[in-house]
Amino acid sequence: MNNNYILTFSCPDQYGIQAKVTGFLFKENAFLKDIHSYSDEDTKIFFSRIVFSLKNNKIPSNSFNKSFEDIAKDLSIKWELSKEGEKIKTIIAVSKQGHCLNDLLYRANYRKMPIDIVGVVSNHEDFRGIVEFSGIKFHYLPVSSDKKNKPKQENEFANLVDSKDADLIVLARYMQIISPSLSAKWFGKCINIHHSFLPSFKGARAYHQAHNRGVKIIGATTHYVTPDLDEGPIIDQDIERVSHKNTPNELIQKGNDIEARVLARSVKWHAEKRILLNGKKTIVFE
Amino acid sequence: MNNNYILTFSCPDQYGIQAKVTGFLFKENAFLKDIHSYSDEDTKIFFSRIVFSLKNNKIPSNSFNKSFEDIAKDLSIKWELSKEGEKIKTIIAVSKQGHCLNDLLYRANYRKMPIDIVGVVSNHEDFRGIVEFSGIKFHYLPVSSDKKNKPKQENEFANLVDSKDADLIVLARYMQIISPSLSAKWFGKCINIHHSFLPSFKGARAYHQAHNRGVKIIGATTHYVTPDLDEGPIIDQDIERVSHKNTPNELIQKGNDIEARVLARSVKWHAEKRILLNGKKTIVFE
Amino acid sequence: MNNNYILTFSCPDQYGIQAKVTGFLFKENAFLKDIHSYSDEDTKIFFSRIVFSLKNNKIPSNSFNKSFEDIAKDLSIKWELSKEGEKIKTIIAVSKQGHCLNDLLYRANYRKMPIDIVGVVSNHEDFRGIVEFSGIKFHYLPVSSDKKNKPKQENEFANLVDSKDADLIVLARYMQIISPSLSAKWFGKCINIHHSFLPSFKGARAYHQAHNRGVKIIGATTHYVTPDLDEGPIIDQDIERVSHKNTPNELIQKGNDIEARVLARSVKWHAEKRILLNGKKTIVFE
Amino acid sequence: MNNNYILTFSCPDQYGIQAKVTGFLFKENAFLKDIHSYSDEDTKIFFSRIVFSLKNNKIPSNSFNKSFEDIAKDLSIKWELSKEGEKIKTIIAVSKQGHCLNDLLYRANYRKMPIDIVGVVSNHEDFRGIVEFSGIKFHYLPVSSDKKNKPKQENEFANLVDSKDADLIVLARYMQIISPSLSAKWFGKCINIHHSFLPSFKGARAYHQAHNRGVKIIGATTHYVTPDLDEGPIIDQDIERVSHKNTPNELIQKGNDIEARVLARSVKWHAEKRILLNGKKTIVFE
Repeated sequence: MNNNYILTFSCPDQYGIQAKVTGFLFKENAFLKDIHSYSDEDTKIFFSRIVFSLKNNKIPSNSFNKSFEDIAKDLSIKWELSKEGEKIKTIIAVSKQGHCLNDLLYRANYRKMPIDIVGVVSNHEDFRGIVEFSGIKFHYLPVSSDKKNKPKQENEFANLVDSKDADLIVLARYMQIISPSLSAKWFGKCINIHHSFLPSFKGARAYHQAHNRGVKIIGATTHYVTPDLDEGPIIDQDIERVSHKNTPNELIQKGNDIEARVLARSVKWHAEKRILLNGKKTIVFE
Repeated sequence: MNNNYILTFSCPDQYGIQAKVTGFLFKENAFLKDIHSYSDEDTKIFFSRIVFSLKNNKIPSNSFNKSFEDIAKDLSIKWELSKEGEKIKTIIAVSKQGHCLNDLLYRANYRKMPIDIVGVVSNHEDFRGIVEFSGIKFHYLPVSSDKKNKPKQENEFANLVDSKDADLIVLARYMQIISPSLSAKWFGKCINIHHSFLPSFKGARAYHQAHNRGVKIIGATTHYVTPDLDEGPIIDQDIERVSHKNTPNELIQKGNDIEARVLARSVKWHAEKRILLNGKKTIVFE
Repeated sequence: MNNNYILTFSCPDQYGIQAKVTGFLFKENAFLKDIHSYSDEDTKIFFSRIVFSLKNNKIPSNSFNKSFEDIAKDLSIKWELSKEGEKIKTIIAVSKQGHCLNDLLYRANYRKMPIDIVGVVSNHEDFRGIVEFSGIKFHYLPVSSDKKNKPKQENEFANLVDSKDADLIVLARYMQIISPSLSAKWFGKCINIHHSFLPSFKGARAYHQAHNRGVKIIGATTHYVTPDLDEGPIIDQDIERVSHKNTPNELIQKGNDIEARVLARSVKWHAEKRILLNGKKTIVFE
Repeated sequence: MNNNYILTFSCPDQYGIQAKVTGFLFKENAFLKDIHSYSDEDTKIFFSRIVFSLKNNKIPSNSFNKSFEDIAKDLSIKWELSKEGEKIKTIIAVSKQGHCLNDLLYRANYRKMPIDIVGVVSNHEDFRGIVEFSGIKFHYLPVSSDKKNKPKQENEFANLVDSKDADLIVLARYMQIISPSLSAKWFGKCINIHHSFLPSFKGARAYHQAHNRGVKIIGATTHYVTPDLDEGPIIDQDIERVSHKNTPNELIQKGNDIEARVLARSVKWHAEKRILLNGKKTIVFE
């Protein structure tokens, strides 16, 4: 592993931000590898992601952090400093469809996806086997059919996230709605995936509606969870072509493929600190 | 040019359709080059597209047509026989955005798109120059701002299509709604293009809405015009990725690119008799 | 599962093939669902794939097969009759890179990929765990570093394929060359995957060469194994965009993604009888 | 038009580059809109593209340039300052295939492609009509069949570029080889397009070779012209899927589509100063 660090930050835009931040980094003997900054005209916020290493592969010290905090206060900067390649602690939640879970397990285990899966939560037991085989703790948190235990169940979920110190919660086809208060608490660290269509279809059995409408493209969208169901900041989207021959079930299978792919990409970007929140939208420094 | 013919047909599904049709073609000394047939389970309709040539490059005779008509009656077949590569007579309608028109002009003139553009209709004069330079008649059919002359204008449009014996009308960003009666008359021979999004956005300034929502993909859809505005059978769709950096204007430019591309593909498929109507949907034999 | 059957065949082209075959099927009370036929002008061979069901969901009888064999002899047809959705017996071979193996295991177990994995062969032990967890027999067939036992090892591999009656062998990053005689024996039933570039790079460390050349696209290709190494009939290809930022290792990771994707698609097409051999090329009825 | 400026630069990498440059810009009252910097580990060169505006929409003054030149000398920076959206003077060269030329004419005339086409050069007269209709001077510079006048012809081409002060030469299917000396003179400002395949095919009739090999993907590549024919720094690549049904001529048509698309994208990136040269490779700040 290299000794690169990733500094991401955003702040109300003004003259001199980049000069002050990179001036500080220069003073700290930082060697800059990759810089991506962007000033959003709509929100008047400045966003930046800087990858750097310190001379002699030093680790950023307390005084580094403290000095930067002074600049940050001055510029009203929100910032985060991470080690490049360091795995972020992740909880995955799943219900009865495993395509996204399995894809993430595989990428975490075999493919350098920089996440450390510290637990899998499910309201069903279907995936206990594969999860435990992967050496990960499986937390069965059922929701009763009358949903009476839902608040308690969600509370257990939230406590698990806290106790594990997880920085990312991935709803990998978790078919339970996260309550507004928990959505607010998890804002910016909880990713959801859902199907998408052109045109959109409201209500149940969307793939059947898409089939009946004769669409030629189906898609999927990831977003950060907010109290507005499926209206959180979009992270990424992707599509596949379909044809008149595809049955609704085949659309679902293709949709699952897209979901697994776009969710994996979003989790990777999140873990690599490439996504910054810009109000109801995202900045993605690909 | 080869001497291939394209037979397309559809009929209520039953046993023996393909055997009877290809048996007939064998008797007529047809050499089959490409066959694509499909039975739709939802509508119980059988669709087929057969490319063939006759022995010694003969042209299908009257007796060929008459004999097939007997089979067609027996099986309630709707059919069409075309010469492969023969250009279909096409009228293009445009308003003030020329990206689709120009693309079609170029493909027709320089690239073997099998259409013969027999006229361009517009409610504006913007594109008279490029159209007339291409050697095509430009028909300026303005619509008054109070729209009072709209029925008369549409009537002139319809008469032009009739007098030119046009088999295809392409609405290449033609910003006038086709009346229900004309839509019905032109059903299956009038193609429209419009932008598409995931999620959809209703109302004006869709690209601005898409920008505000922070979408990562924009798209376009072609469909056959029906009395249901933008709800006709979908022919094709395509998309492009966009990012947080794209202004609404850049989204529009990208959207124009997609529109030109997907419309050109749809017109080509139509001209090659690859699209068969299946109720509110299309069968596309790519 | 439905009761559809798939008839695929090819033969020297002549007049009347489709009429004779569909006439036979009509006589046998076959209801045709999907037909795709193609006459290749270069090789003068006719290819066809017909999906049908028999009246009352009957199973094709011995007399069905015998009657068709008479037509087949007459027309020099090579044919195969399969039940749609029936899983084909598959042996997967792998060495030390598991991305393709894992993807296939997952699709076979969880996603309706119509293969029945009857064994995994490897010259290394790395993937014994995941394979056995999936309930599949793992056959460790090591090759000594002096390669002296290679013929014997390959013989064991071949015997395993025979004893399991496997219809498909997937070389999922199996880094041993199949001998010409075994390649010939397995022709049309052994699929290999390798990376591909524009331009091509010969020799070792192709991804490093691609990185040094500054390519913007990398790809992968599947083909049927023949005695000509990597020159067998191409089944499918796919690509991903890369950028100046991608290190050789990142290219390799992206390349692995492409390989897994294109191999899965090829195996699916093979299992669905969509691929017919046309000399050194393939016909793919997608 | 906005009052944004684009500063692009590259220099041997060292500590403090970004701090010094953005410190200078801050001092000059520059408001930074978009920053993309990258340190290439292979070549040890630092690359940067900074979009900014000056307070009160001022134009960078002589003293701005002079002050920056001092920093540039100190850091051995090569730099360029451009006004965003300013059209760059472009000469297009073409022979007998017009798909790329026409696409560029259209984008320049109707679509905000930021190029000002100051002349079209051709060794044939085929496109005089469309060029002159577009209000652009057509320079017919024929090459005799014995090629004896080639040096003189190329000299006229080079003189035209000089006299027009063109900053970009686009070889839009110009089938004459540029001499090594002229290639060297035009390094970094002359873009060529050619087809690409996986695998590659050497020699003539590449599309026929690709057809015979049964490839499923064809592509195109743009690069800066260097004395090494077709080996200059790659700018961009793109592909399309093809099938067994595509004749060599259809491959050529599809290839033309790809070429027009990838060339347009490359020219746009060049005009927007998104491409920086990195030895035999390019940095593309998309």
